[in-house]
Amino acid sequence: MLDQVKEESSTELVEQVLSDFVAIRFFTEQLCELLKPEDYNLQAIAETSPAKWHLAHTSWFFETFILKKFDSDFSPFNERYEYLFNSYYNAIGEQFPRPQRGLLSRPSVEEIYEYRKHVTEQVKDFVKSLAQAQDKRLNEVLSLIVLGNNHEQQHQELLLTDLKYNLFQNPLLPAYRTSDQLVAQNEQVLPIEWIRFDEELVSVGTDINNEPVTQTDFAYDNETPQHKFYRHQFSAANRLTTNGEYLEFIEQGGYQDSQYWLSDGWDTVREHQWLAPLYWFKKNDDWFVYTLDGVKPLNLNEPVAHVSYYEADAFARWSEARLLTEQEWESIAGEPQLDSNSFNLVDNELLHPVAATGNSGLQQLFGDVWEWTSSSYSAYPRFKPASGAVGEYNGKFMCNQYVLRGGSCVTSRNHIRKTYRNFFYPEARWQFSGIRLARDL
Amino acid sequence: MLDQVKEESSTELVEQVLSDFVAIRFFTEQLCELLKPEDYNLQAIAETSPAKWHLAHTSWFFETFILKKFDSDFSPFNERYEYLFNSYYNAIGEQFPRPQRGLLSRPSVEEIYEYRKHVTEQVKDFVKSLAQAQDKRLNEVLSLIVLGNNHEQQHQELLLTDLKYNLFQNPLLPAYRTSDQLVAQNEQVLPIEWIRFDEELVSVGTDINNEPVTQTDFAYDNETPQHKFYRHQFSAANRLTTNGEYLEFIEQGGYQDSQYWLSDGWDTVREHQWLAPLYWFKKNDDWFVYTLDGVKPLNLNEPVAHVSYYEADAFARWSEARLLTEQEWESIAGEPQLDSNSFNLVDNELLHPVAATGNSGLQQLFGDVWEWTSSSYSAYPRFKPASGAVGEYNGKFMCNQYVLRGGSCVTSRNHIRKTYRNFFYPEARWQFSGIRLARDL
Amino acid sequence: MLDQVKEESSTELVEQVLSDFVAIRFFTEQLCELLKPEDYNLQAIAETSPAKWHLAHTSWFFETFILKKFDSDFSPFNERYEYLFNSYYNAIGEQFPRPQRGLLSRPSVEEIYEYRKHVTEQVKDFVKSLAQAQDKRLNEVLSLIVLGNNHEQQHQELLLTDLKYNLFQNPLLPAYRTSDQLVAQNEQVLPIEWIRFDEELVSVGTDINNEPVTQTDFAYDNETPQHKFYRHQFSAANRLTTNGEYLEFIEQGGYQDSQYWLSDGWDTVREHQWLAPLYWFKKNDDWFVYTLDGVKPLNLNEPVAHVSYYEADAFARWSEARLLTEQEWESIAGEPQLDSNSFNLVDNELLHPVAATGNSGLQQLFGDVWEWTSSSYSAYPRFKPASGAVGEYNGKFMCNQYVLRGGSCVTSRNHIRKTYRNFFYPEARWQFSGIRLARDL
Amino acid sequence: MLDQVKEESSTELVEQVLSDFVAIRFFTEQLCELLKPEDYNLQAIAETSPAKWHLAHTSWFFETFILKKFDSDFSPFNERYEYLFNSYYNAIGEQFPRPQRGLLSRPSVEEIYEYRKHVTEQVKDFVKSLAQAQDKRLNEVLSLIVLGNNHEQQHQELLLTDLKYNLFQNPLLPAYRTSDQLVAQNEQVLPIEWIRFDEELVSVGTDINNEPVTQTDFAYDNETPQHKFYRHQFSAANRLTTNGEYLEFIEQGGYQDSQYWLSDGWDTVREHQWLAPLYWFKKNDDWFVYTLDGVKPLNLNEPVAHVSYYEADAFARWSEARLLTEQEWESIAGEPQLDSNSFNLVDNELLHPVAATGNSGLQQLFGDVWEWTSSSYSAYPRFKPASGAVGEYNGKFMCNQYVLRGGSCVTSRNHIRKTYRNFFYPEARWQFSGIRLARDL
Repeated sequence: MLDQVKEESSTELVEQVLSDFVAIRFFTEQLCELLKPEDYNLQAIAETSPAKWHLAHTSWFFETFILKKFDSDFSPFNERYEYLFNSYYNAIGEQFPRPQRGLLSRPSVEEIYEYRKHVTEQVKDFVKSLAQAQDKRLNEVLSLIVLGNNHEQQHQELLLTDLKYNLFQNPLLPAYRTSDQLVAQNEQVLPIEWIRFDEELVSVGTDINNEPVTQTDFAYDNETPQHKFYRHQFSAANRLTTNGEYLEFIEQGGYQDSQYWLSDGWDTVREHQWLAPLYWFKKNDDWFVYTLDGVKPLNLNEPVAHVSYYEADAFARWSEARLLTEQEWESIAGEPQLDSNSFNLVDNELLHPVAATGNSGLQQLFGDVWEWTSSSYSAYPRFKPASGAVGEYNGKFMCNQYVLRGGSCVTSRNHIRKTYRNFFYPEARWQFSGIRLARDL
Repeated sequence: MLDQVKEESSTELVEQVLSDFVAIRFFTEQLCELLKPEDYNLQAIAETSPAKWHLAHTSWFFETFILKKFDSDFSPFNERYEYLFNSYYNAIGEQFPRPQRGLLSRPSVEEIYEYRKHVTEQVKDFVKSLAQAQDKRLNEVLSLIVLGNNHEQQHQELLLTDLKYNLFQNPLLPAYRTSDQLVAQNEQVLPIEWIRFDEELVSVGTDINNEPVTQTDFAYDNETPQHKFYRHQFSAANRLTTNGEYLEFIEQGGYQDSQYWLSDGWDTVREHQWLAPLYWFKKNDDWFVYTLDGVKPLNLNEPVAHVSYYEADAFARWSEARLLTEQEWESIAGEPQLDSNSFNLVDNELLHPVAATGNSGLQQLFGDVWEWTSSSYSAYPRFKPASGAVGEYNGKFMCNQYVLRGGSCVTSRNHIRKTYRNFFYPEARWQFSGIRLARDL
Repeated sequence: MLDQVKEESSTELVEQVLSDFVAIRFFTEQLCELLKPEDYNLQAIAETSPAKWHLAHTSWFFETFILKKFDSDFSPFNERYEYLFNSYYNAIGEQFPRPQRGLLSRPSVEEIYEYRKHVTEQVKDFVKSLAQAQDKRLNEVLSLIVLGNNHEQQHQELLLTDLKYNLFQNPLLPAYRTSDQLVAQNEQVLPIEWIRFDEELVSVGTDINNEPVTQTDFAYDNETPQHKFYRHQFSAANRLTTNGEYLEFIEQGGYQDSQYWLSDGWDTVREHQWLAPLYWFKKNDDWFVYTLDGVKPLNLNEPVAHVSYYEADAFARWSEARLLTEQEWESIAGEPQLDSNSFNLVDNELLHPVAATGNSGLQQLFGDVWEWTSSSYSAYPRFKPASGAVGEYNGKFMCNQYVLRGGSCVTSRNHIRKTYRNFFYPEARWQFSGIRLARDL
Repeated sequence: MLDQVKEESSTELVEQVLSDFVAIRFFTEQLCELLKPEDYNLQAIAETSPAKWHLAHTSWFFETFILKKFDSDFSPFNERYEYLFNSYYNAIGEQFPRPQRGLLSRPSVEEIYEYRKHVTEQVKDFVKSLAQAQDKRLNEVLSLIVLGNNHEQQHQELLLTDLKYNLFQNPLLPAYRTSDQLVAQNEQVLPIEWIRFDEELVSVGTDINNEPVTQTDFAYDNETPQHKFYRHQFSAANRLTTNGEYLEFIEQGGYQDSQYWLSDGWDTVREHQWLAPLYWFKKNDDWFVYTLDGVKPLNLNEPVAHVSYYEADAFARWSEARLLTEQEWESIAGEPQLDSNSFNLVDNELLHPVAATGNSGLQQLFGDVWEWTSSSYSAYPRFKPASGAVGEYNGKFMCNQYVLRGGSCVTSRNHIRKTYRNFFYPEARWQFSGIRLARDL
């Protein structure tokens, strides 16, 4: 009797995971619908991969960690793809050099779509056959598919932020798509307010059990284990820093005054001659911003985006404030009020963050811009990386990067959660990264 | 009566120049027929431009130096193209940075073909209207079209050599086209023979009068003026150095022994860890070479190609010989026996140089590989650059580069002549560049 | 009556601080006794400053932050020194570029010794005059002298580690001094033992009040404020990792296997082709190590030194262990049992760490090698930097660096304390930096 | 009878060569008399060697090519010096990396002077013993000593120009020596005049026979063989370009206008942000120049010095003129009217070029500034490098460099001759390099 229940639930789980898988695979392709073949290969800097590479690499992930590992009948779609589309998994083998991904005009876009289709079908068929055979490896495979689903969602976001960066290098400033949906500037912005939090022994992180889970229960290994953290009293801003507030920092000479900057930040500002966030530019006396919908006048009420950690930190010091630690952030965040069944982006229509319009309490925690925290990305107490090659997913990056929290307007709704830890180098600006201020009491 | 004759000849000239113009424009596009849209943007290093950029830049040349300058009704196809597709003409204005040409996914390939078509039609119409109106600027315009035709022929060659280089970066080693036309290795190679030339006061270079000329009479300003040169006695090899001869240099440790190398050459070899010409690679114990038709076994009898000046010079020293000076080369070359009415490439079918099979006398002077000379590229005595912006065409590069003579298998037949001076930096290897030896007596 | 007591204690404090000041100034010069004039200017990389620069900069510190700021009769010894010998205090003005310090052959060594003498005398005279006049700024000035004393002690350590690095670039491997004091290899090493620590809410950091303090009570602003930290259970190695243990890691291919390395660490290892700690080299089959006393055979029982954070972390992972966090380290460290009245180095005679020979309990916590912790250098909760230009001392470096604890054999005895936070970039190896392992329970 | 004459002349030759040798060795040391020990190690860029290295390398040359090669009793002064002080002779063995010569604080200055003394004595003794023994290798040895003498004279000039460059990096702008000898600005400058030369078959270069020669007959292998050259008609400026003329080029925007520049020159100007010759700087509205005697106001009548080939070429184009070829220069130069018995510098007292004050005819050909020619440094027809390792002296640099003629104010009087070919990369500015204009007729 018990077994039968289990089997049923297992069937449901299989269906759920495969349905998510298909939806996510489809959504990646949907994001590329407007691209011309020439756009698929763009790579201006090593950090940004071509769209074609994202399409291929996410397929490679399923092929390598599921089909190749578990399917005894496996033969590769193209044996050279293992080398071409491995990102950084040293345990799998050598990788094609990252800065040269844009040089791969072949395989062509068409071939990559065939590859995607092939992998999607193979995975579906393989899981079904495992389920039918009541193969005891089913649970492990399902877990890896959920991991692969989340992996692909991360690449969906990168696909958009990379495209934004790469198209921006073109002096014609071509838009990813054309839309007039950006909200007009005349809305009122929520006044800033400091919300106080007391000293407290809080709980941070999450535990995953070994059971296969669905999209809504998933977490990466770097979010584990759940542990205690002693938080000191502080106050947090009720909303994100706006373009208007950041503009004041610029206009008062923030980029010219070393006192606000970390030493490495000051070196970076001078080396790159930064004078404003990425994508901002001034024409005559007016500020404009490049968006996925093309160039728009700067909206002062929108949250500032595309700033580096250095800029976030300098702005905070200029504001006589500081950034939150990731533990502070998580302990005050609550659960996101987003539709967890949606694979669409938070701001699918806008692909751009919008001004805070909420009422009292903390606003804009989830799905606007990634919020830089002052926490260097490191292992939680008693952290253990996942076993096998997927153990390279997170742990080996725990150095020199800073944690960002909350998800952005181009993160999938059901890829956002309270315990999620994103991380980038402090000079990175091409993500939708922004600022929430905190103060000591 | 005299005027009537002139007019007639003028009509013939207009027809000839426009017919050449159309043929050359068409041939450029024909060279791209096999490309996929993704291939058009490839740019692995600053020196190699994307195919799309070549297509656009050659059109920009006609638009800028003819339509914009002479046609009072001119309006640009797209005003941003002036910036995007200017190569190095400072007199015209700022240029889009060369190393980033591969980042221009837009304008798309389709738009560039429209641009080409537009420019071709405009030029034709404009010249016809000038002729009809008996406009006295006709001759100047015709001269510039002939210059533009030759300019486009140079870019046809670059288009192929750049593509070869850029496709080679892909570990899949995709071929530009697929063909089995490479000649089998069992032909006999002409034995090397040293042909003696006496001390003599020779004439070098050519004079162009100011009349408009056709393709067959054309020369660049850097080939002028004709002047005397005192040549000392020497002997020259009857044919080009073969792969087999070069392989012996490799196998006897030529790349490991500093005594054969110029100081800058030795630094270059060690920096880039060169062990063989570009496109050669060893698999197990066999040598292969990458060609525009894909990977082929190394044919020992073919002329060695894709060597730098440093390698040519080191090989010569190892051979107890030297390279020719450009004056020596020109003084012994005779006239090319090629069909000067053909816009096709010398080795249109092979796109690859072939083994010497001639009889006595100097062989392989024209249309096999560009022959490195020991002459630094500099102004001939009493040289005057062309006036106006086209004066930037040649003169400003007269420093740090070395002259190559003779044309290659991917040069247009009627773009080859005895006085032609090609020039590249001594480390350049991506052209079909090879070696002819000389000796002092 | 009370005032009289205060005055007396103030007199004692003035005497104590000045006596420390003189002793520290003298010790810096003593460290340079064996140098030839040519040695004083060596600078192989930007990170290592010439000895002459250290001598001058530590004088500049007292001149700038005390004499110039407080003494109304002040005139600079040489007005250009402000620019030449400012390290990174942006609030003071522009700085001579760090990588070019080795190019300052002038001022000569003699001139710098005159400068030192001048500043030492001026500071002494000025403080005495303040004390005599019962000037209310006395306390602030004394505080700054204590800061300057500690600053100079830091530079004493750097002077030695920089010299070691710079002399090592010379293929003659000249020794800083010649001594046979290195202990023979036949001592027994203390067996490794894991000491368990329970979960606990511990206290970390210290508070400084605003009173002037003596050397023994001093702390930097980055050690403040004292705060609570929730520590999870773990065990720590009773002693440092030895050369012998590290050699096993090398011999088992640790430097060739990516699985042990952080991603940035693996890139660094390959870029610099690291195969062993800095200063190790193999001759025939034997390992040697370069020390301040010249080349010595590698002693397997001594603690490994001159490893980067990346190497420490990789060794820990290979050992199925990890590094301690700085909070863990501080919470188990106890107080150093060193003579706090001594300005000499911990291992004044050896200038080299020695093998652990203690009994039970934690050994080698202080004064052997700086122990890399897994803690990114960041602000303690509610940290406030010191005010004024000296606020640039610590806070602005709180990014991208990792904390090291415990002091080394070339740290002054009374410069070592439990709460001291040293910090370096993770690739730094030229300090006496080593490894203590920890494990989760 | 004949033998006796020979012997006598041989004795005289030995005496002459050794007397020259001793005088040159002494003069090198005299040039260093004013240096502090710290100055001896300065090396700001790879191109400039430390004074100590010049002192050592010139000794290494005699030790390696004479003592080690010919003296059967030879044992090296220090066997590591072969590696440390070899410049680029690959046939001798590996070389210590050039950019790191400034890191060799040891051997100390004292040790290097001992080394010099040792080598000088050894060479003298060895030659005397050969002469006494009527050893038939005497002639060859004498030839090599004369080569070594000339080699050391080249390094005397480099020692001064390198010191000038390296001291200039110091913001204190220390002088090599202190002197008020620079001539006042109110002298009159010789008006420019164009001197016409006809078309002619001229003779260029020289022949050396194999006999040992004295200083006055010596030539390097790169000046051989003498050969015919067909010179076209042209005119040459009677004197060098002055600072005043060059200043006009600057003030009329020469550094901002690409039309005057070679393509590589324009890139270089923008990369290094050149705005004037090396050592010029503007303070308020006045121009100053850094000299070996420290900073002086710019004298408008002095020849411009410390310009690159690119600047010389651009200035010439702006002047509607051009540079001379080296053959033109040599064919019109005549013989230098300098005291060929003097080992002193041409302008020993000034160490700086002076304004032209001569009468009619060509002025300032020898010993003012090296005159850039438009000739790329290459082999003369039928050139054969010297045999053995000294064959690396000249030939392997025949690429990418340009010939300079005439000698400078810091060249030894008897090191200057009509056929002398100096050569530097076109971007080099740290030599006393200047401009003479020519024009086509």
